[in-house]
Amino acid sequence: MSSDKKNHIKLDFAKGGGLLPAIAQDYATGKVLMLAYINEDSWQQTLETGEAHYWSRSRREIWHKGGTSGHVQKIREIYADCDNDAILFRVDQIGGAACHTGYDTCFHQRVARDGSVTVAGEKIFDPEKVYGK
Amino acid sequence: MSSDKKNHIKLDFAKGGGLLPAIAQDYATGKVLMLAYINEDSWQQTLETGEAHYWSRSRREIWHKGGTSGHVQKIREIYADCDNDAILFRVDQIGGAACHTGYDTCFHQRVARDGSVTVAGEKIFDPEKVYGK
Repeated sequence: MSSDKKNHIKLDFAKGGGLLPAIAQDYATGKVLMLAYINEDSWQQTLETGEAHYWSRSRREIWHKGGTSGHVQKIREIYADCDNDAILFRVDQIGGAACHTGYDTCFHQRVARDGSVTVAGEKIFDPEKVYGK
Repeated sequence: MSSDKKNHIKLDFAKGGGLLPAIAQDYATGKVLMLAYINEDSWQQTLETGEAHYWSRSRREIWHKGGTSGHVQKIREIYADCDNDAILFRVDQIGGAACHTGYDTCFHQRVARDGSVTVAGEKIFDPEKVYGK
């Protein structure tokens, strides 16, 4: 991909200090699965491989989602927002769970208007069995 | 809301330098509408009013979404992610359009694997008529 092609996306990585937020949404259910960050390299690897790649802020390295657990995210559609500083991946979530805690979605803490939290979401796997203790 | 109550959410605003990403999703259709940022004050105002408030990074002020256009976002559900550094608002999007460009969603640029963009999304209103020229 050449960045000077017409009608080609130019993500504004500078705006986010090199990182932009990327939302993963389940293609079949519409559930929002997680939010992570991409840098230019992880973006290119996502386009090239068709599987979601992020930038791990804690490990400071490219993160092929599912590389350890097998729960990769197969890209079905990609959307950029109106000012080119956020991305939406619509994915097939292999294994059915996006969250390292074993829940189907990372967004499994439901917050009431008084700030109280209840756990809402489906536990798909036991993290100890997938990642070890 | 007292932040030392048990089972109350403690968002990790420090992790994002005072700002955390918030996703707005249409409650009825499941469509991802936009991504913006919240600070502690806009978060509290969202909880108190039941309408989405963000932090405008360009204007450097609290942004009551829809305050100008009337296209407010009525909060139906709120979810926090597993590490308390991202938020999902599930909303009724009044007026049917979240994007200042008039499209139903800010994520209306569909990106193909070769990086090319096509516009996908429904134009709901003419921005000039809502905001003036």
